[in-house]
Amino acid sequence: MGSDARFKKKTIDIDVGFDAVVVSPQVVRRLGVSPGSRIGVGCHGSLHGAIVVVSRLVGDDVVGLSTGLAEKLSSCDSVELYPFELPPSFAQLRKRIRGEPMEEVEYKKLIGDIVSGFYEESQIAAFLVSQLYKELSMDELSYLIRAMVESGVVVKFSETVYDVHSIGGVPGNSKVALLVVPIVAASGLLIPKTSSRAITSPAGTADTMEVLARVTFSPEEVHDIALKARGVIVWGGALGMAPADDIFVRVERKLDIDPRTQMVASILAKKLAMSVSRLVIDIPFGRGAKVESEDEAVGLSSLFLAQAKRLGLVMRIALTYGGEPIGYSIGPALEAREALEVHIKHEGAPSYVEKACSLAGIIFEMSGAVARGKGYQYACEILKSGKAYAKFREIIEVQEGDPDIKPEDIKLAPHRLTLEAPRDGIVSSIDNRGISLAARAAGAPDDKGAGILLHTKTGHRVRKGQPLLTIYASTESRLRDAVRILEETSAIVVEGVVVKVLP
Amino acid sequence: MGSDARFKKKTIDIDVGFDAVVVSPQVVRRLGVSPGSRIGVGCHGSLHGAIVVVSRLVGDDVVGLSTGLAEKLSSCDSVELYPFELPPSFAQLRKRIRGEPMEEVEYKKLIGDIVSGFYEESQIAAFLVSQLYKELSMDELSYLIRAMVESGVVVKFSETVYDVHSIGGVPGNSKVALLVVPIVAASGLLIPKTSSRAITSPAGTADTMEVLARVTFSPEEVHDIALKARGVIVWGGALGMAPADDIFVRVERKLDIDPRTQMVASILAKKLAMSVSRLVIDIPFGRGAKVESEDEAVGLSSLFLAQAKRLGLVMRIALTYGGEPIGYSIGPALEAREALEVHIKHEGAPSYVEKACSLAGIIFEMSGAVARGKGYQYACEILKSGKAYAKFREIIEVQEGDPDIKPEDIKLAPHRLTLEAPRDGIVSSIDNRGISLAARAAGAPDDKGAGILLHTKTGHRVRKGQPLLTIYASTESRLRDAVRILEETSAIVVEGVVVKVLP
Repeated sequence: MGSDARFKKKTIDIDVGFDAVVVSPQVVRRLGVSPGSRIGVGCHGSLHGAIVVVSRLVGDDVVGLSTGLAEKLSSCDSVELYPFELPPSFAQLRKRIRGEPMEEVEYKKLIGDIVSGFYEESQIAAFLVSQLYKELSMDELSYLIRAMVESGVVVKFSETVYDVHSIGGVPGNSKVALLVVPIVAASGLLIPKTSSRAITSPAGTADTMEVLARVTFSPEEVHDIALKARGVIVWGGALGMAPADDIFVRVERKLDIDPRTQMVASILAKKLAMSVSRLVIDIPFGRGAKVESEDEAVGLSSLFLAQAKRLGLVMRIALTYGGEPIGYSIGPALEAREALEVHIKHEGAPSYVEKACSLAGIIFEMSGAVARGKGYQYACEILKSGKAYAKFREIIEVQEGDPDIKPEDIKLAPHRLTLEAPRDGIVSSIDNRGISLAARAAGAPDDKGAGILLHTKTGHRVRKGQPLLTIYASTESRLRDAVRILEETSAIVVEGVVVKVLP
Repeated sequence: MGSDARFKKKTIDIDVGFDAVVVSPQVVRRLGVSPGSRIGVGCHGSLHGAIVVVSRLVGDDVVGLSTGLAEKLSSCDSVELYPFELPPSFAQLRKRIRGEPMEEVEYKKLIGDIVSGFYEESQIAAFLVSQLYKELSMDELSYLIRAMVESGVVVKFSETVYDVHSIGGVPGNSKVALLVVPIVAASGLLIPKTSSRAITSPAGTADTMEVLARVTFSPEEVHDIALKARGVIVWGGALGMAPADDIFVRVERKLDIDPRTQMVASILAKKLAMSVSRLVIDIPFGRGAKVESEDEAVGLSSLFLAQAKRLGLVMRIALTYGGEPIGYSIGPALEAREALEVHIKHEGAPSYVEKACSLAGIIFEMSGAVARGKGYQYACEILKSGKAYAKFREIIEVQEGDPDIKPEDIKLAPHRLTLEAPRDGIVSSIDNRGISLAARAAGAPDDKGAGILLHTKTGHRVRKGQPLLTIYASTESRLRDAVRILEETSAIVVEGVVVKVLP
């Protein structure tokens, strides 16, 4: 790229969802660029991509910088603009869009340019959609993961780092880490868990933990508090680790796709950036989950294991039951509450407690702390002994929350409605997708107090009029939306004990 | 979509490449939308999609509208905002992104939403990339074309409408219509040609015609001047015909892809919107052209012919030689000049004149004016008789240009450089792609006077020092860029007469 001009700069209060540079109509004509396209902005050869916004808010010798961009360019006295028709590495991406493989050095360039902001979302979309049709090869996937790790911050530890990560897609799952991490950390192993906020679900682990403590820290802070408490549960998004991933995820949401090679890249890149070397991957499968069949789950496991081997990561996979929500709560505050209750009472819904102990148990087996087959029991004992709760309080404290918080202190949304069983019978299904959509309609995850509390689970016998679930919403209209979705999706079904009489 | 609020409006001088609505940080939080995403804006149920821009330039009870959007909403006293997570028809597009076919009614919804601005470019990109892997079926292609036509303006005529259209991809081709249209119109047939501006080439027919006359008219104006002169050459982009196409083309440029089903849809939708019922499609093929092999050209022909039949369009295809530039000129002014010279002298480069007479001849044969096999001769006679030039002057006049303009009146770019033959020999190749890139680097098509003038063609014998081509550029640096590209791409090669001596 060659620079075409040098400009004075000023900060303009404008947010178009990406770094933006505001230029006058005269300047945009002279540069021959289109409004809405990307341009390089910088000084002394250090360049950032920005969206071109055209306005007479600036004169012909000045460019306006959006707040974020102004910070990145704070050391520039004046700035230069570098127009380009396509991003520098586009020739490489061009091949991939057509389904041809890319080489290691090409992935490095591509990811570098994506992180620099040279790519538009349409171009990122093309990369993602190509994976639906022509999956990344095992080589390509390794190249992509390494390039993603190298393009961002890496937090280093001088000891073995453990972690557990669920591929998600099952409502109520965000609270599992709130048991696993304290159980593992209580044993002395190091488990600095980074997690995401909700993408399409009603709660991500970061959203749920945020009900109890701060989750946004700098990489240095995470390093220090993790060593102090042996475990943390923080948001990965603020750490600058594998930053291309945030861009991929944003576009995936808009396309409602989640190509499995990209999912594997996303998870493993974030873990490698935290120096994790022993990892348990939880793949919940079942109706309405991200992975519906066991075959599919096994296929995905192979992909994870093969990549782990290439990347020098010791990994075990847990295929878990994901055919209905985990535990009783869906939504950040409700899930934080259920987690706290289990810590305090040392017991709770089997779908929740057994899952958490199983995952923690696998980590203990990997660490050599216990023999194979003994991990689950070991984890349960830590939970039952209260050591996990003590550790959880410690983690909440290092994350600047109140360790003395009680379940009933957690505020829930004020508008509530309880659905009751329309007849005597058995709860024959609780639909993941319907429950997720309804909890989101109620306001989760942005409104942390919103969500759904189940009073029953699949297979339970209920009497007519017995409460099935309660919706918590921030407004009456959101409450109505949630009820409508529950009805439309038949999210919970009660059937007579005799399901069918054959002639 | 349900509205979440009503606002006062004001116009804000901002162009982000798409209609935009500027809202305050407080409002964006309340609506739960992200900056950069799309939102519905309107009143009384009439909605337009716009990009969300966040700024304190507006208060909490006001929204700012970009100029174009303000015009669309001029009848609204106040406006409402309608947030949505995904566009209303996204469930349909979701299938297509995964390669499943869409139904007729689904294409209508999709195209309607695209035209309304509810789709982001990333989502359009996914639609286009899916076609690279899973081509539209013949049914889908017809649905898409019809939906594109119905979503915009249709210009109706009460007589048979003829047209000729090249799929493009060969430099120098934009001037062909400047012969064909006058020849056909001189015979009395109606040929209201709409054409595009350059997408990736150094000149579109609209760019070249614009050197001689106005090309931007309203649909009513095009209708009237076409009936007056029997032929016009105007820009299709300003007519509001098949408006989704402009959106597709914009994204195709960013992805550097041109899926053939989308190309067929694009061409046929624009023609149907002009009520064309007899159409000649020119498919140039050869090295460096859009279509490289004859097989590929034949395959594309079948696709065009099958769709034409379904859409009730009488069509003939011309497979033409596209292995080097057409005629001697590349770039709007240079090509307009060559066209004018041929009109005045009644002769010129065979690759140009013979092509134009052939295409016009096919139209004459389709019309029944002459017997099959006699069209070419008939067209040549119209050109040689001066009737075509008289008609061209008439067309220039109804399009508000100067009919008396002479070739030498046309202004060319001031910075010039002539490449000379490095040795005695034969011109063994002139590369389409190298010539195109160099002409664009020189400034074409935005700088109309820029481009390349060939002094020789493939197969011609040249002496050392004899001029091969002249570059016209607007600045010295653009001239240097063009020379560099010509050298890097070996755009013109002179070889000794004896190419190889075998032992």
